[in-house]
Amino acid sequence: MAEPAYTRLPVDERHAQLLELCTELFIRHSYAEVSMAEIAREAGISKALMYHYFPSKHELFVATLQAAAEEVRRRTEPDPAVPPVAALANSLDAFLEWVEQNGLAYRKLLESAGSVPEVGALVAEVRDRTSARILEGLGAGAATKPRVAVRAWLWFLDGAILDWLEHGDMSRAELGELLIGSLAGSLTAAGAGELLGG
Amino acid sequence: MAEPAYTRLPVDERHAQLLELCTELFIRHSYAEVSMAEIAREAGISKALMYHYFPSKHELFVATLQAAAEEVRRRTEPDPAVPPVAALANSLDAFLEWVEQNGLAYRKLLESAGSVPEVGALVAEVRDRTSARILEGLGAGAATKPRVAVRAWLWFLDGAILDWLEHGDMSRAELGELLIGSLAGSLTAAGAGELLGG
Repeated sequence: MAEPAYTRLPVDERHAQLLELCTELFIRHSYAEVSMAEIAREAGISKALMYHYFPSKHELFVATLQAAAEEVRRRTEPDPAVPPVAALANSLDAFLEWVEQNGLAYRKLLESAGSVPEVGALVAEVRDRTSARILEGLGAGAATKPRVAVRAWLWFLDGAILDWLEHGDMSRAELGELLIGSLAGSLTAAGAGELLGG
Repeated sequence: MAEPAYTRLPVDERHAQLLELCTELFIRHSYAEVSMAEIAREAGISKALMYHYFPSKHELFVATLQAAAEEVRRRTEPDPAVPPVAALANSLDAFLEWVEQNGLAYRKLLESAGSVPEVGALVAEVRDRTSARILEGLGAGAATKPRVAVRAWLWFLDGAILDWLEHGDMSRAELGELLIGSLAGSLTAAGAGELLGG
């Protein structure tokens, strides 16, 4: 708070601008294709300044991923004032809205989860955190079957989204209903159907 | 049929032996690490003979994948004499048995689906074929929601299996029940619950 705003703000803004630009570049091109020189050129800054913000392409890439994950986390934060099941449905819809706006990025992320270790780690981490959040929100304990049901449902979610993006023959609301219904069905099969009962 | 058996049989056997050996090698090492020279050495044949059977490492790798996929397909072939729902449960159990016997290969396959285009294509092809087989077996039409439910459930299946392999705290029968129950729940959410009703 003691730092003067006129030096701090531009740094944050430049940082955000670079991350946004890189998100675009990494979506349109593979990691190998994008060079630090190209990023600096597109941002209209020197390569030296570029390296001042991000010491390597690797760190820039990881920061780009983390910024996207953080935005998704923020937008899907469950509302504690709403009953858990409704909060889950709201979070899911917020997530589907983000996917709708970032379909290509989402597809690319899942495609590169196997080839780029950082992406694989991020996808696994998000699945872990999300399943923990869902289990906690629904008041499930540490039992095996509900854990497997929720974790596997997050895979179901990705599969359903890819099908949705590919075919485009379902509304976001319909997809959301199918997903919540599937989660309820999976929890029922796991002997924990009461968790999503109402 | 006109070819003499004494030349044909050894060729088939050699072919099968090489594929088996390569499955082992590709599970233990990455594609880049395994060389044709090493495969020939481990098989006890000359490099020239090796190339006679498989013109390139790439073709050998693809043949290895196809042989594994073919074995899975054969073992999970639904029995037409059994009612569709029971046939599905039997096929699923046969698949889980194969996974139990080939856990490392299965994990490796899913992990490399994003990085090796042939693996990604194979996984996608198997999911397409399997979902078509399930939808056909259950007598589902071409409606959107049952299609999405079954395709996404195949992702659920992979997620549940990876959790199962990682934690090992569920029997194969329990996993099978959870999976069939989840499919029934997803089809119900897709407005097609009667398909797996009994």
